[in-house]
Amino acid sequence: MAVNEPGLVIIGGSDAGIMAGLWARQINPDLPVTLIVRDRYPNYSICGIPFYISGETPDWQMLAHRTTADLEAAGLQLLLQHDATAIDPAAHRVAVRTPDGTTTDIPYDALVIGTGAAPIRPRLPGSDLPGVHLLHTIDEARTLRSMIDADARQVVIIGAGYIGTEMADALAHRGLAVTIIEMAPAVLTTFDPDLGQIIGDQLTRHGITVATGTTVERIEHADGPGLRVIGTNGLDVLADAVLIAVGVRADALLAHAAGAATDDRGALVVNNMMATNLPDVWAAGDCVHTHHVLYDHPVYLPLGTTAHKQGRVAGINAAGGHARYTGSLGTQAVKILDLVAARTGLRDTEATAAGYDPLSITIAVDDHKAYYPGATTIHVRLTGDRHTGRLLGVQLIGAYGAEVSKRVDIAAAAIHAASTVDALADLDLSYTPPLSSPWDPLQTAAHEWTRHRPVP
Amino acid sequence: MAVNEPGLVIIGGSDAGIMAGLWARQINPDLPVTLIVRDRYPNYSICGIPFYISGETPDWQMLAHRTTADLEAAGLQLLLQHDATAIDPAAHRVAVRTPDGTTTDIPYDALVIGTGAAPIRPRLPGSDLPGVHLLHTIDEARTLRSMIDADARQVVIIGAGYIGTEMADALAHRGLAVTIIEMAPAVLTTFDPDLGQIIGDQLTRHGITVATGTTVERIEHADGPGLRVIGTNGLDVLADAVLIAVGVRADALLAHAAGAATDDRGALVVNNMMATNLPDVWAAGDCVHTHHVLYDHPVYLPLGTTAHKQGRVAGINAAGGHARYTGSLGTQAVKILDLVAARTGLRDTEATAAGYDPLSITIAVDDHKAYYPGATTIHVRLTGDRHTGRLLGVQLIGAYGAEVSKRVDIAAAAIHAASTVDALADLDLSYTPPLSSPWDPLQTAAHEWTRHRPVP
Repeated sequence: MAVNEPGLVIIGGSDAGIMAGLWARQINPDLPVTLIVRDRYPNYSICGIPFYISGETPDWQMLAHRTTADLEAAGLQLLLQHDATAIDPAAHRVAVRTPDGTTTDIPYDALVIGTGAAPIRPRLPGSDLPGVHLLHTIDEARTLRSMIDADARQVVIIGAGYIGTEMADALAHRGLAVTIIEMAPAVLTTFDPDLGQIIGDQLTRHGITVATGTTVERIEHADGPGLRVIGTNGLDVLADAVLIAVGVRADALLAHAAGAATDDRGALVVNNMMATNLPDVWAAGDCVHTHHVLYDHPVYLPLGTTAHKQGRVAGINAAGGHARYTGSLGTQAVKILDLVAARTGLRDTEATAAGYDPLSITIAVDDHKAYYPGATTIHVRLTGDRHTGRLLGVQLIGAYGAEVSKRVDIAAAAIHAASTVDALADLDLSYTPPLSSPWDPLQTAAHEWTRHRPVP
Repeated sequence: MAVNEPGLVIIGGSDAGIMAGLWARQINPDLPVTLIVRDRYPNYSICGIPFYISGETPDWQMLAHRTTADLEAAGLQLLLQHDATAIDPAAHRVAVRTPDGTTTDIPYDALVIGTGAAPIRPRLPGSDLPGVHLLHTIDEARTLRSMIDADARQVVIIGAGYIGTEMADALAHRGLAVTIIEMAPAVLTTFDPDLGQIIGDQLTRHGITVATGTTVERIEHADGPGLRVIGTNGLDVLADAVLIAVGVRADALLAHAAGAATDDRGALVVNNMMATNLPDVWAAGDCVHTHHVLYDHPVYLPLGTTAHKQGRVAGINAAGGHARYTGSLGTQAVKILDLVAARTGLRDTEATAAGYDPLSITIAVDDHKAYYPGATTIHVRLTGDRHTGRLLGVQLIGAYGAEVSKRVDIAAAAIHAASTVDALADLDLSYTPPLSSPWDPLQTAAHEWTRHRPVP
């Protein structure tokens, strides 16, 4: 690809798009790379929004993974506040609305779609009232933070996934009265309910009102200023602001309109090179379905880590290199108050649905030797396949500082290697009394699992 | 094996011996298991001695992994203060000196040797003077702690391996004036010198005198009370106590005298079932050589984690089960002051000596996103094989609390799986801004390694 050709065009300036651009330049430093970015904020960490809201990150501009200057120095041409409105795959052109409202056509040799996801707004009366927020962009975060800095005192959060619970933590940190509402029986719905309950209890202990098993039926104007949130179980609570965090859906309409295949959830279909069905068009990040190490079919698992890895693969391949996405395990960590919850692989129910024959055990053990000060409890749930002995998943909850998140990553590495539960216990893992035990908590759990497994 | 038979006899009541006994009972709950223990302290954590010396662990009895009552409840018969003096492999009997000085013969069906290691006392004039300590047993630890609790004010430590540096930290924590002396160019000699230097600088900043590249020539009585330590580079320092921590050697004389094969370092030769060359005799822990995942020959790597795993394997096999020791990576972690150093696999020099073609890179990156408070630097050195791309080793130094030790364990899991460096970067590892970055520091190092690797 010569430098006078159109080169690589990328739609989207978040994790997937930026990674695609940076890696494309890395393997082909002469390749022209143009990013079409809808807003003014390329490469912002939306995972950092809760910490900006809490004030722990004082300035929203700190949330940039890289500055615009960094990106331009790396050879990326940024078209900020440009909106891609159509793709013509036959002509290899993207129609773009510029900041002044005119439309222009940008040619490409290769195109990477990184249009991300959009937050789901539930079909709920009042969900479009002023004061109801769908927190997904830097501008929305700034608006909410301004409200809090001014006079908001009571906030209701609808949805207690990891973003909802992080936001409950953040708003309580600012001294607001917080109610968090979840339909499921416990908060932190990507964990088993009894483990989510540990986080829920911690939220309660910190003065947050937790309403699980509760469905919001409507949001309406309060008699005075503010809003009133009404639902099942007698839910009737006033709020200066309502935050909806019930999940996201792939934002794939642009590519779909150009003929890109989507799955039944609306996510773009890609192969493990991150190629779509359109010629010279790749896609990555929250707008695509995700290949999973333990499922024989793709799933929708939008996560920042995955977007980074997929963006890298898309960028390398779009620039003429060769890379393959090796698959997700849905590995996640979240810090809530002074606890960390982390998971990788499949929970028991997920493993059953995927056709495995799972056995799960749970232990609660010290993170390090009790004779060294500060030992705390780690709850370990380990899931393996009864038939093959294969390790399928781990969920951990423990104290912030107790190396919880990277312990889950040991299990992730083992699952990637198709390890058995027994082999997890054989790994030569580190030990010093202030940080672990001679058998790491994961290995104690592996022993416990083997004790419970019926002799094969 | 019927219950009226002699059953399993184990010589040694530390990590390897206790694991052998507990796992033997687990797979065969009717098996009589007898442990011959030289001192009064079965199953004590000698890794915890520095924290007892520092006072962070107030009572030495807290250092027991399990109490005598726990062990007896698990079905182990403990012969404390009994000293095994000879093994007759043909007759399947062990001669034992009892606490009252008489000798008795104990028959066995199966025998596990867990006689551990003894600290090396260098050939150094004055190394046997009163006040010179070789810290390896609970009694020795209690003696040293009594001295410190009484009136010791200045201590010299000879040897700056991980035990020497932990002791320097511990003694400084108690307010003593500490000098630590090391022949090698930097402290923490199981790490590359420039990384050890980071720990050395931290010791210095905390008021500890660090004398590297220095050889002690003699210890003598001071003119007043106490000792005087004299060596190269003008070393001449007074001490109320001198602590020698220059390593350990396998304590295998008992088994060797009975015909057990030893290697050129004096460690017992075992196969990966932990069987010695003697019939029905297994061995485990610091008295044996260790199979290593990355070397094609056994090495001597005495570590508590390894002793636990080998003891388990020996106990299961000695009880009629089947287990295999899958090998060590020399994985280690140590906390010194507010830093943690951790390593797994091979350093560059070790890899070269083992016949690999290593390439090592070093990066210094934040442990987590800088916009969340408290980010600290992690130094990552990653070693891989230029030719095959295989991951060979990782050394990390970072802050206590920054999940350093379990990050090294992610690499350990990958090395056990014979992973390439590239595959390390593909692992689906967890991320939340307070705990990591979208690419974990290990993965950023893996990318850096690949950038430096000549195209294969």
